[in-house]
Amino acid sequence: MPDHLPIIDSGQATQPLFWGVDVGGTNVKIGLVDDAGQTLAFEKISTEVSLGPQAAVNRVANEIAKMEQNLGLPRAQIPRVGLGTPGSMDLAAGMLVEPPNLPGWWHFPIRDSLAAALERPVSFINDANAAAFGEYWLGAGRAYDSMIMLTLGTGVGGGIIVNGELVNGVNSFGSECGHILVDSAADANLCVWGGGRGQLEAYASASAVVQRTRERLTEGASSELAGMLGGGDNELTAKQVFLAAEQGDALANEMIDETARWLGIGVTTLVHTLDPGLVVLGGAMNFGGLSSPIGRRFLDSIRQEFRMRTFDNVYEGTTLDFATLAGAAGYLGAAGYARAVHRQTAAES
Amino acid sequence: MPDHLPIIDSGQATQPLFWGVDVGGTNVKIGLVDDAGQTLAFEKISTEVSLGPQAAVNRVANEIAKMEQNLGLPRAQIPRVGLGTPGSMDLAAGMLVEPPNLPGWWHFPIRDSLAAALERPVSFINDANAAAFGEYWLGAGRAYDSMIMLTLGTGVGGGIIVNGELVNGVNSFGSECGHILVDSAADANLCVWGGGRGQLEAYASASAVVQRTRERLTEGASSELAGMLGGGDNELTAKQVFLAAEQGDALANEMIDETARWLGIGVTTLVHTLDPGLVVLGGAMNFGGLSSPIGRRFLDSIRQEFRMRTFDNVYEGTTLDFATLAGAAGYLGAAGYARAVHRQTAAES
Repeated sequence: MPDHLPIIDSGQATQPLFWGVDVGGTNVKIGLVDDAGQTLAFEKISTEVSLGPQAAVNRVANEIAKMEQNLGLPRAQIPRVGLGTPGSMDLAAGMLVEPPNLPGWWHFPIRDSLAAALERPVSFINDANAAAFGEYWLGAGRAYDSMIMLTLGTGVGGGIIVNGELVNGVNSFGSECGHILVDSAADANLCVWGGGRGQLEAYASASAVVQRTRERLTEGASSELAGMLGGGDNELTAKQVFLAAEQGDALANEMIDETARWLGIGVTTLVHTLDPGLVVLGGAMNFGGLSSPIGRRFLDSIRQEFRMRTFDNVYEGTTLDFATLAGAAGYLGAAGYARAVHRQTAAES
Repeated sequence: MPDHLPIIDSGQATQPLFWGVDVGGTNVKIGLVDDAGQTLAFEKISTEVSLGPQAAVNRVANEIAKMEQNLGLPRAQIPRVGLGTPGSMDLAAGMLVEPPNLPGWWHFPIRDSLAAALERPVSFINDANAAAFGEYWLGAGRAYDSMIMLTLGTGVGGGIIVNGELVNGVNSFGSECGHILVDSAADANLCVWGGGRGQLEAYASASAVVQRTRERLTEGASSELAGMLGGGDNELTAKQVFLAAEQGDALANEMIDETARWLGIGVTTLVHTLDPGLVVLGGAMNFGGLSSPIGRRFLDSIRQEFRMRTFDNVYEGTTLDFATLAGAAGYLGAAGYARAVHRQTAAES
């Protein structure tokens, strides 16, 4: 994360400070962020899912205590902590519900457990919403009041900000853009996690790209990816599809264009609902982003589908872009959300 | 509008007061509403579209002056006016753009024209957004922080409130729920107003119900509606479909169920985007609402489609209901929006 190197000297910080904790299936990212969005300290620790949630909370708390000590920072300067985790979750209760990425952590009161360990209030949000809030505060959305972010990975996540407010939803299911419907056909694709038919996630996630490519290869489509049907070390991934597309492989390019078409349909629906002025694509599956001809073509193909399906003024008035904070978006957004809650609380008291 | 009879004695009013002006293709509704949502005065005048927008603005201003005089109210007690019109519009500029329902009114600066005539600031919004804001403030949404309203008429309109804020959009295209995509097929229906393919409006508007019914009748479907293909006085309307359904006509009931199915798809997408806890159906096409078995069946069919496509907790945590303010929602919402802007402005100064 070269854009977000810690600044060592906490004397340069704008008070107050906030911890942002971004829990993933593999790593937990922990960052100390000042009121202006500068990162003062950062650590990445292994999640160790199998050891259970309380062990992870304790390790996060120890890590934070250590960093505070090293920096010589009193707790009073860091009044609140932001926590993002993968769903499903119950935000009001502060509970993990049944997160598929965190087996063994189901129905755990993670918010209050972390708050007790840190002796500070914790603001709890969905990880994709946290990433969107990070981009809104410090990344691609800096100049906007509202935005929609789609997070393209194994699944499709989303985060929506309307007039500065993150859309968490009353059932902790706000901004679940991967679950909007793009295909109403009776035989539409099933969602990666099971459940709904015809939802965006089943068409525009990395899993969907792989599945569609496998189907075409099984049908005998000619492609340099044909050797990857066997699995093992040579397993087919969205990254492999991207690499083949960079080599000019026709099937790989077709698969990326098809993904873009479905995303264009989803983007149209989301923009017609909220008209935010900005749609941001984040997550691991960005086909190289703006630094690759394939990534630029991917973005252009989404734009073309959107253009075909919307009105001229809405097309002209909507920016579609890649996210800029990469893997830092989650902890920055968690910290930013804690900052927003802190300000709201201060304004109300 | 029996629920909203004017209270005559303005001494009972909660200050300040706001005018709400709801411009339609046939009538303009003008209501004086107090800070608690009570209507102190109400007039409906003919829009007279053919006389042009400046003439209509003058007649609205005269009507308001007359009512203020009758009530003995000084202007200072009514600091702001809310104005709702059918789109398309440019909210920031205060302009009508190309509203299909108001031929001859295109590219007219209606907000500033009315503000000049009334010597007061005017807050300008889309008519469906105004209706939604009315339901949010005083109707079906009273107990909610967020809600989505779908307005079913010739077209499908929408209005969205997120955490108390109306979603107007940066291109004046926020909350256009009729334009979300429900059918991605290449031969999907075209929108009533032209343009997009596969959008909700082309499946769930009164026009769509009539078109689908005509198609089935032309194909020879047996129905008591068969005599209505000729046009003229006996022209087929969504109302006729509703009346036939009430008589037990199988085709008519099938058409209503199909409409409900498409709405269930649209509701799923909207709820997965915003998870507001409440979805309200308004507009003329409510098949009798809760007072008719057909209306209740319509609502239930939408619910069943939504249930099939969402998660249990989201289904349980989302209320789907008919609007309660009927034709009063627009002027009440316009007044309520003026009130919200007035409060915001007061808080910021």
